[in-house]
Amino acid sequence: MSLLNADKSELKNRYNELYDKFTAYKSLNLNLNMARGKPGKEQLELSNDILDESYLNGFVSCDGTELRNYGILDGIAECKKLFSEILRVNEDNIIIFGNSSLNIMYDYISQCMVFGAGEGPWAAQKNIKFLCPVPGYDRHFAILESFGIEMINIPINSDGPDMEMIEELVKDSSVKGIICVPMYSNPTGISFSRVTVERIAELKPAAKDFRVIWDNAYCVHHLSDDCDEFINVFDYAEKNGTEDYFIEVTSTSKISFPGSGVSALAASGNNIAAIKKRMTVQTIGYDKLNQMRHAAYFRNLEGIKTHMKKHAAIIKPKFDAVLKAFDENLSGKEIAEWTNPKGGYFISLDVVPGTAKRVVSLCKEAGVTLTGAGATFPYKADPDDKNIRIAPTFPGVDELKTAVDILCVCVEMAAIETVIN
Amino acid sequence: MSLLNADKSELKNRYNELYDKFTAYKSLNLNLNMARGKPGKEQLELSNDILDESYLNGFVSCDGTELRNYGILDGIAECKKLFSEILRVNEDNIIIFGNSSLNIMYDYISQCMVFGAGEGPWAAQKNIKFLCPVPGYDRHFAILESFGIEMINIPINSDGPDMEMIEELVKDSSVKGIICVPMYSNPTGISFSRVTVERIAELKPAAKDFRVIWDNAYCVHHLSDDCDEFINVFDYAEKNGTEDYFIEVTSTSKISFPGSGVSALAASGNNIAAIKKRMTVQTIGYDKLNQMRHAAYFRNLEGIKTHMKKHAAIIKPKFDAVLKAFDENLSGKEIAEWTNPKGGYFISLDVVPGTAKRVVSLCKEAGVTLTGAGATFPYKADPDDKNIRIAPTFPGVDELKTAVDILCVCVEMAAIETVIN
Repeated sequence: MSLLNADKSELKNRYNELYDKFTAYKSLNLNLNMARGKPGKEQLELSNDILDESYLNGFVSCDGTELRNYGILDGIAECKKLFSEILRVNEDNIIIFGNSSLNIMYDYISQCMVFGAGEGPWAAQKNIKFLCPVPGYDRHFAILESFGIEMINIPINSDGPDMEMIEELVKDSSVKGIICVPMYSNPTGISFSRVTVERIAELKPAAKDFRVIWDNAYCVHHLSDDCDEFINVFDYAEKNGTEDYFIEVTSTSKISFPGSGVSALAASGNNIAAIKKRMTVQTIGYDKLNQMRHAAYFRNLEGIKTHMKKHAAIIKPKFDAVLKAFDENLSGKEIAEWTNPKGGYFISLDVVPGTAKRVVSLCKEAGVTLTGAGATFPYKADPDDKNIRIAPTFPGVDELKTAVDILCVCVEMAAIETVIN
Repeated sequence: MSLLNADKSELKNRYNELYDKFTAYKSLNLNLNMARGKPGKEQLELSNDILDESYLNGFVSCDGTELRNYGILDGIAECKKLFSEILRVNEDNIIIFGNSSLNIMYDYISQCMVFGAGEGPWAAQKNIKFLCPVPGYDRHFAILESFGIEMINIPINSDGPDMEMIEELVKDSSVKGIICVPMYSNPTGISFSRVTVERIAELKPAAKDFRVIWDNAYCVHHLSDDCDEFINVFDYAEKNGTEDYFIEVTSTSKISFPGSGVSALAASGNNIAAIKKRMTVQTIGYDKLNQMRHAAYFRNLEGIKTHMKKHAAIIKPKFDAVLKAFDENLSGKEIAEWTNPKGGYFISLDVVPGTAKRVVSLCKEAGVTLTGAGATFPYKADPDDKNIRIAPTFPGVDELKTAVDILCVCVEMAAIETVIN
């Protein structure tokens, strides 16, 4: 039964109880943060050895390339091999970039705006649109918004975005693509099912220059052995001849070091050729020493998996702490729903519609910073004002426990306010 | 007196002599290269210590920033300070980027195409043009060409580009800018005089969104103490209120390691704000560990200067070897002119008009690769077919001596061919 169906005076009493807790927390002058999808310090320590000079292989790659000098536009062979194992594609379908997969996506969209994706510049085609599974990643939406691309919300379910809606919308040739995180989605943590991936690969968009930005940021970021399956979209795309629609990116930002990692793109031969043509003008090449560090330190997919278990050992207890608190404080009251991800960096919390902003503001007052309400939607506009992204990785477990207790108090307060005010 | 005024039969004899030398060289099956503006291996060895972990400062910057995690869009304080000393501007006017100043320039032009420089997107303004001092840097021209910006050749003299011509052309509002290397220009090696810099800063272009891409790639790359003076264009721009016209870039590519260095941009407050606005969407930040390596290893401008003397000690003998060979083999014949740079990476050689392609092709036949004739001009079109860029840094001195001897033979052969054929 919903807490909110209770008697008004009962609710007022409950609110007063919560308010006392809230006030007590507030008096502690805390400064806690569950907003940032950042690894914690303990996680950073895991990769320090990568900086050892021994991993630079005497400054020479396996094919004899001098790593300290100019040369190699698309990545050293060792690093291409590593990412080809991670993304399960051929090495020829991989390009290694700098430290940021966000930058790869930005540059790709920018390239489509100026040069197009085979059908003339997007900038010259008026009113183009992208489909955005929501809740989603604010920085994806910021890229599209900055280029003036209209964003259409697509509800995301436990097995991926609403495919009926997508299949209908792509009949409009002004719909140029989809941007999504197919595995351990930001912020819901869900992974697209095999059926969803297959249906996306079978899309028959009216736009011939349709592109799916397949941001596989968390494809090896399992929280335990009970994990979601990596489904290679290119396996299905090739069957359907749609491989040119897919631009896949990933990085080691949350494997080694955020900011000092290596990012990579996987795409069809046609797209690789088009991207290299642009890159030839844009740069002489990315940091090969850092590529070698990563390739030599992790060696192969097995090396990555072993390393990711160390990350999981640190962050799984943090996810568990949040979920335990939600369970203890919010379940059975019908005032909140949340996801229980098997990987990634976030938990998605839906509160009573119309109260997300209020919850974030109450938390702020009590010393807990959350991701801004609305941030998980295009234009920062959550139509139901209900979604909050929880980022449990950065704080220590104790801090996190306090922060989530405060959050639960605020969620319930804001819920009751909708009835008693 | 010009060699080419000699008696025809004399010339034929001389040609036969040269042809014998050419054939002898050819039979050696050499594979020499004077095409690449790359440091040689000995130069790379100078910076190996930068990779020592001690320079990572315990992964923390002076303001307490954790260098291994996300954060800091525009560069760590230490690195901004280093580049503010190199470029003689305020730290607030500096942004630190990734490993490539070429990438900074590409992204800046791309930004102007899509978002403009305050007066609407360049892509929406038809037939825009850039002024290109020639001979110049092929990769500059490749950027402009890729975006469909028309390039206009501006002859470059010993004190910089022809300013009368520039002052006249900027009266046309479709002329949006100039791209140049003001110090130790690629390939001539000349530096813009104080008067030239002042006149550029005093330009009154019709285009309000005029931009000068001021590529100061070689600003600390002196060959000896007898060097050209660093002239800060912003000193003059500020006097004239034209500071928004200037986008200055540089990098450590030829200070530490090409590909694994740090690049930087200097610009006015208005431009820094506009660029940061774009960067906020484009990336979370660049590699802060590599920034710290550079800041801690070089410390300050004095540290850079000391280090650059070590480079000079290696490459000055290479420049001297080329110039000595030119002097011995080509001077007094009026078949070639060349520059004698005090810094940078190149020597510019002008051969008899109409013979540059022939010289490059003859050299190729004899085992010496040169930069393609025409590469130093927009659209790879040298109107006089006379300019050849000589890159003496990569080969060893002995190799270089052989290569330049072959070059001299080919220059003279091609010159004589214009008369006797």
